[in-house]
Amino acid sequence: MSCQIRTQLTDNKQEFHTSPDISLNIRNMKQLEYSVLARRTNQIKDELKKGVKKSYREVIDVSWGDPHRAGVKPLSFVRQVLAACIYPQLMDGDKLMVDVKQRAQMLLRACPGGSVGKSYAYIQYGRVSEYITRRDGGVPSHPENIYISSGSQWALTNILKVLVNSEASPRTGVLTPVPCHSTTILSLMALGAEVVPYYLREEQGWALDVEELQRAWGSAKEVCNPVGLYVINPGNPAGYVQSRKSMQEVIRFAAEKRLFLLADEVYQDCVFGEETEFVSYKRALAEMGSPLSDTVELASFHTTSKGLMGECGLRAGYVELVNLDPAVMKHIYSLFSADSCAPVLGQFALDVMTNPPQPGDPSYPLYMKVDHFLFLIHRKAFTEFINSLPGFSCQPVEGGAFAFPRVFLPPKAIETAKELGMKPDTFYCMRLLEEAGVLSSPGSEYGQQEGTYHIRFCIMTPSEIMEEILRRLSTFHKRFMNEFS
Amino acid sequence: MSCQIRTQLTDNKQEFHTSPDISLNIRNMKQLEYSVLARRTNQIKDELKKGVKKSYREVIDVSWGDPHRAGVKPLSFVRQVLAACIYPQLMDGDKLMVDVKQRAQMLLRACPGGSVGKSYAYIQYGRVSEYITRRDGGVPSHPENIYISSGSQWALTNILKVLVNSEASPRTGVLTPVPCHSTTILSLMALGAEVVPYYLREEQGWALDVEELQRAWGSAKEVCNPVGLYVINPGNPAGYVQSRKSMQEVIRFAAEKRLFLLADEVYQDCVFGEETEFVSYKRALAEMGSPLSDTVELASFHTTSKGLMGECGLRAGYVELVNLDPAVMKHIYSLFSADSCAPVLGQFALDVMTNPPQPGDPSYPLYMKVDHFLFLIHRKAFTEFINSLPGFSCQPVEGGAFAFPRVFLPPKAIETAKELGMKPDTFYCMRLLEEAGVLSSPGSEYGQQEGTYHIRFCIMTPSEIMEEILRRLSTFHKRFMNEFS
Repeated sequence: MSCQIRTQLTDNKQEFHTSPDISLNIRNMKQLEYSVLARRTNQIKDELKKGVKKSYREVIDVSWGDPHRAGVKPLSFVRQVLAACIYPQLMDGDKLMVDVKQRAQMLLRACPGGSVGKSYAYIQYGRVSEYITRRDGGVPSHPENIYISSGSQWALTNILKVLVNSEASPRTGVLTPVPCHSTTILSLMALGAEVVPYYLREEQGWALDVEELQRAWGSAKEVCNPVGLYVINPGNPAGYVQSRKSMQEVIRFAAEKRLFLLADEVYQDCVFGEETEFVSYKRALAEMGSPLSDTVELASFHTTSKGLMGECGLRAGYVELVNLDPAVMKHIYSLFSADSCAPVLGQFALDVMTNPPQPGDPSYPLYMKVDHFLFLIHRKAFTEFINSLPGFSCQPVEGGAFAFPRVFLPPKAIETAKELGMKPDTFYCMRLLEEAGVLSSPGSEYGQQEGTYHIRFCIMTPSEIMEEILRRLSTFHKRFMNEFS
Repeated sequence: MSCQIRTQLTDNKQEFHTSPDISLNIRNMKQLEYSVLARRTNQIKDELKKGVKKSYREVIDVSWGDPHRAGVKPLSFVRQVLAACIYPQLMDGDKLMVDVKQRAQMLLRACPGGSVGKSYAYIQYGRVSEYITRRDGGVPSHPENIYISSGSQWALTNILKVLVNSEASPRTGVLTPVPCHSTTILSLMALGAEVVPYYLREEQGWALDVEELQRAWGSAKEVCNPVGLYVINPGNPAGYVQSRKSMQEVIRFAAEKRLFLLADEVYQDCVFGEETEFVSYKRALAEMGSPLSDTVELASFHTTSKGLMGECGLRAGYVELVNLDPAVMKHIYSLFSADSCAPVLGQFALDVMTNPPQPGDPSYPLYMKVDHFLFLIHRKAFTEFINSLPGFSCQPVEGGAFAFPRVFLPPKAIETAKELGMKPDTFYCMRLLEEAGVLSSPGSEYGQQEGTYHIRFCIMTPSEIMEEILRRLSTFHKRFMNEFS
């Protein structure tokens, strides 16, 4: 029997392909690069526990897009509402604000039988679509075009299942930005899609350039059938925010090449630049008018895991679909129906995210007190600081949770890394971890132009932690550059 | 683009097969049969709201295996621990018992950073394996053989992905009981497996008969390659509990035919018969000694959604794997790693389920007060009552959440149903819903011997609801039988 299964495994084994001309070495990158660092982090933590002396007392982990992990406190309103839903007796006393109780009661009423436990089927699509309509200045959103799932990545995978024909020859291609967070790339590979990279223009603030899309599409046509275009806005790992003009160009390109637009907009609440605003792809598309607004197929993703909510542990997100053929919608409906529903408490958090306390509500002042504004300070402090270090160059951070500076590693450092069998940026991260106790993640996890190296830092942390990071980074970086110069 | 996707859909479309000689009409059964009833239920609820007069004021829903939906109160200890984890400030006062606080603190300590939000990776495999070892009287369980997921069905689907080669010819077959709850059958079909039915012996209390397994296996060999044997113990929809002797026969059969045993044991905490005890397949296998105990491959599933916990909305379950080849384990590891982790609060509920309050703990008395014993009364009251009705026959209910009585429908009722384009048991359920306001589910959802009809009732409800159900059912059933006799 074991043999039988083993044989099947061999038969089933998915060959992960990328275009031959691509310098990205995506395969297993997440596993290989990150796991080396994660393993060493755990060892260091154990050493610190055992009293081994180091120049730091604890490891600061800014390698994830998980603000709570990076030290940000959860939003009280969210947590109070959830606690009241979980254990409604809490509402008896006067410990909770009246708007907390009202929200909890409203959410429980929507559950079959009024308990979070009995809710295989709690649905709040209407509340989400109202939020989207408000966000997009009145562009209508319909509940039947929204699917709630256990996180946005889950929703994306379901949409990709429809888009990608894993048995097609030539293979199905999806244009994907470089750099790009790795979860989507792993999903694409798992489905047997061809990951077609298009490079963001770092020197132009990671701009999305249509000429580059053209080039990518042209090279893709030789090896696959490109059907999708994946965009991330605001960026991850690079903290850009797309302008409306850039989005319009992308939409026209998608229309011309008949590409399905997959818009990863999970950082839509985290836009900080003074003259920057978040515009959803849906809104940009609607504003372009017919025929584009009636024809370009679009899926937009959002989640409770990111941004100011940061509730990764609750598992909820959604996708909104635009201009899809009814037959395709029917298939998507079956796909989402076959999944077990998103956890009810995650759905409740989604309700709070899309309908936060309003001015005048008792919980409003505390809700707004969140370190909202810290990020404004950080992004400037961080980029200014890092640009002052020799050999670092960081584009402005306008949105999202990350900075993605380029590091110009000395040839001797690159050589040493290669001798150790490590990628040069991973080598840098490893030394930063080892010597300064800061866990970051190497650019090779996300893809980067050949010969360039980057480091991703989650900058969504409290100020005191950010100051400590900069202190440690500064000392370490100068020593590192000296050592290898 | 729409056309492109549509073409792909046609290419991808999964043909759902069952063996040609099988009377089960599994295809779409859940969708078709249940949705008709669910839709009518919603209409009736609306009518009641609008003041339409009926013989009942509200619909009682015993069609699901969701005890909270059927009126059972959630366990306070579980809910208090979760509320304290969500909003730790609750632990400041003296409202919560000391063991609630201790448990919450222990669980939060295990989270990276101490918050349920930052826990993409909270792991408690050790606590689950300790539980299993205790349950099985010392048979060792190893954390590395356990995978926690967003519900047991999720875990089952991952294991099936390894077992079923969707491209194989002949197709991969999995022996599956009749009756069987439909989620597993839908998973098997979605993966392109051949569902090979074996019939439980109703007249012997739904016994699993090895001769019938032999017959099923023999007929399967002609159309597919049978690699798995799926067993449900305690039963769903039929409330049997397998004896150790019966399990030993099944294990020997699986060994002889080299079948992978898939043991759905999600109702393991719900065993009520006086001389009945739950024995896990793992324990039965271990007790049989070498070579069987070292070779038969087994996956056992459990969940927080069922039984006394009934926390469907939290989404957590696990699978334990026994005797799998290391290469296969590695593949399974990747599969589970690629999924997003189970929601953290679900994982916490799993911790409470596997480590409930012990005698002496402050929360113990309340924890034990749960309607534990109501089910003991119900199962007897229900079967006795239903056996007293003309045309009903119910086997003893020894475990699980359901009774699955057979109803001998008069030929005129069967004819009328057919004229209406309905299955006869669905017709019965529809009339029961319409006239008595009780939503049950028809046997055709679960599979049944051709020409027999059954109704599934969730009997895990508070006593007053159960009494009301019996009252309504009695009046309705007599009228129904008169009408069609």
